[in-house]
Parts: sequence; structure tokens; C-alpha cells
Amino acid sequence: MTADRLARQMAFLVEIDKLKQVLRRTITVNDDRNENSAEHSWHVSLMAVLLIEYAEDSGLDLLRTVKMLLVHDLVEIDAGDTYCYDEEAAKDKEARESRAARRIFAILPEDQRTEVVSLWEEFESGVTAEARFANALDRLQALLLNFNTRGKTWAKHGVTSRQVLKRAGPIGESSPQLWEYARALVKEAVAKNMLKP
Amino acid sequence: MTADRLARQMAFLVEIDKLKQVLRRTITVNDDRNENSAEHSWHVSLMAVLLIEYAEDSGLDLLRTVKMLLVHDLVEIDAGDTYCYDEEAAKDKEARESRAARRIFAILPEDQRTEVVSLWEEFESGVTAEARFANALDRLQALLLNFNTRGKTWAKHGVTSRQVLKRAGPIGESSPQLWEYARALVKEAVAKNMLKP
Repeated sequence: MTADRLARQMAFLVEIDKLKQVLRRTITVNDDRNENSAEHSWHVSLMAVLLIEYAEDSGLDLLRTVKMLLVHDLVEIDAGDTYCYDEEAAKDKEARESRAARRIFAILPEDQRTEVVSLWEEFESGVTAEARFANALDRLQALLLNFNTRGKTWAKHGVTSRQVLKRAGPIGESSPQLWEYARALVKEAVAKNMLKP
Repeated sequence: MTADRLARQMAFLVEIDKLKQVLRRTITVNDDRNENSAEHSWHVSLMAVLLIEYAEDSGLDLLRTVKMLLVHDLVEIDAGDTYCYDEEAAKDKEARESRAARRIFAILPEDQRTEVVSLWEEFESGVTAEARFANALDRLQALLLNFNTRGKTWAKHGVTSRQVLKRAGPIGESSPQLWEYARALVKEAVAKNMLKP
């Protein structure tokens, strides 16, 4: 029984190694290559640890937030990373990701499958304070990388400041201070010709 | 004051993006390339969440363990990843990493610098239950990847099962069940000619 449980957990841990091959549109700061979703998940989890003081809800459960961020992109192993400004791909994103969740999380023992599915659904629905803050950081991390790579990805896809601000919107729902920071960053990006007004 | 604090935190979060460029000797399971320390940190943090039940000390603080794993490799940004079987590089590893810690963690506001330095030192000294479990997972993750890439890294560096078992030793100090699993994996690796006896 325990051997089967451990075998399932290990099979899952080997399976999710695939997240290291899922490429995002963002570019890493010091190397001109696409970021992958595993290293993004690390980055954003550590952001939660260091920026928790800016969450509007001071009663936030940091461990739950970090757990959410560690698993929030796992479905991309099957579903791929859907570029946030791709309206065509957005249409079947939910269906693709639900299928992926069913397959990938089924590898885990039942109690952990339930926990991970619930963390992932919580992140997706963005209703709880933890999920709102996790979503805010997910958006802020992409903005931070795009700004610090001189907007290369924005230029490549012809993105405007209006689109970026809309995309960053969830930051404002969770943290006024980080939202102010994000808006200043977008303004500076426009002023420095990294981003179309 | 707050603006300066946030600026420091953001500067740190941009600086640590460099961890995505630090390559380890381990190879990712589904792509023949070296793993980087950022994605490794994600992987091992999620392992802590899913394998916490195997920690010998049942009173373990999971959040502290995960925080430790999220920051444990940051000094590699300056110091590089020291291959565990490289005795020459091991000689000045501590000095290189201390220098790196002084520079990198100094970017943070003082209270967070103190916290992150303390997490990193705790991991390095391996004295607390959290640090022992974090170290165990760090070793187990490498073993898992090496096994699932058919021992390519072991063969390349002429590593023996005795060296691998010695390296995996900390697993036994934190979790009898994971240690049993690790030993079985090494045995199977030898039986399948992935690893020299």
C-alpha cells in the first residue's frame, strides 16, 4: 500500500519534469531565450515569499499561495502555454487544460490529487485572497521580465500599453502598492519606447 | 521609504533571474539538456509539498522547508554550481558561496536579507529537521533525474554506485522510507548497467 503510494508520487514527480520543456513568450533577463514554465513557477513562488507584505488581505496564507504557484502551470505539460494575447488559442484553453488536469493529476494518490486539483482550480477561479495574490504575482512577473528585456516580446507581438495594463489588471485587485508599481513600469516602458502607447 | 524598500525587492527579483542560467550536471528527463538551478529549485520545492509525510520529524514546518528550497541555490548565481563529485572545486566552494551571499543578499532590505541569509545558512548547516529534509530532497531529486535519464551523467563522469550512495546519504538522516527507495533505485541502476557497481 505504502509502496504503491510512493510509486505514484515518484511517477508524478518524474512526469512533471516535462514542465521544464514548456516555453513561455517571456524572455529571461540575462540570456536571449524563452523562459520555461518550471523556472517561471520558481520565480513567482519566491516573489510570493518576498512580496507577501503587499497583499491587501493581511490574513493571507502564504504556504497555500506558494503551493498554488508551484502547481499553477502543471496543466501546460499537455495543454501548452497559451499566449495571453492570442484570442484564438484562448477559445479552447479551458477544455485543453481540463483534459490535461485529468490525465496529469490522476497519477497522484487520491488525497493528493484532490488537493492539487483544488489548488489549481482555486488559482484559475481567482476568488480567494490567496488566488488573487497568486494571480497578481503571475502577471507582475511577466511584466517585470518584459520590462527588463526592453520589451522585446511586446514588440514582436505588436502589443500595446493598453493591452499590457488590462492583462496586469489582477494586480490591482490584490495589491494597491504593486498595482501602482506596475502602472509606473508600463508608463516608463512607453516613455522609453519599449512599448506602444 | 516604502518606495526604496520595494525598489530593493524588485531589484533582487530581477537579479535572481540569473539562476535560470546556472547549469547543473543533471539532465532533464524529456530533453537532452542540462537542468538549470531555477527549475531544479521549483522541482525540489514541489517535492517537499508532496513528500512531507515521509519526513521522520512529523512536526516539520513545511513553509520554512519550501522557503529554504526556493533560496538554497541562489549563491550559485556568482559561485556557479559545484559538481558534487569534483573534489578540487569543493575546496573553495564555501569561500566562493559566502562571497556570493554577501553580494546577492545585500540587494534586499535588511530584514529580508537577514531572513534569507538565515534560511540559506540553515540549509547549508543541515542541523534542523527542516534543513535535513530539504537536503534529503535535494539529493533525491538529482538521483531521480539521473535514474530517469539512464545514468547518462553518471557514465560521463565515471561515477560509481558507492559514490552515489554516499552522496544520497542525507536522505537516510531525514527519512527511512525515502532512503529505502533511494537505495532500491541505486540497486536497480546497477542491475540495469546505468551505474558502475
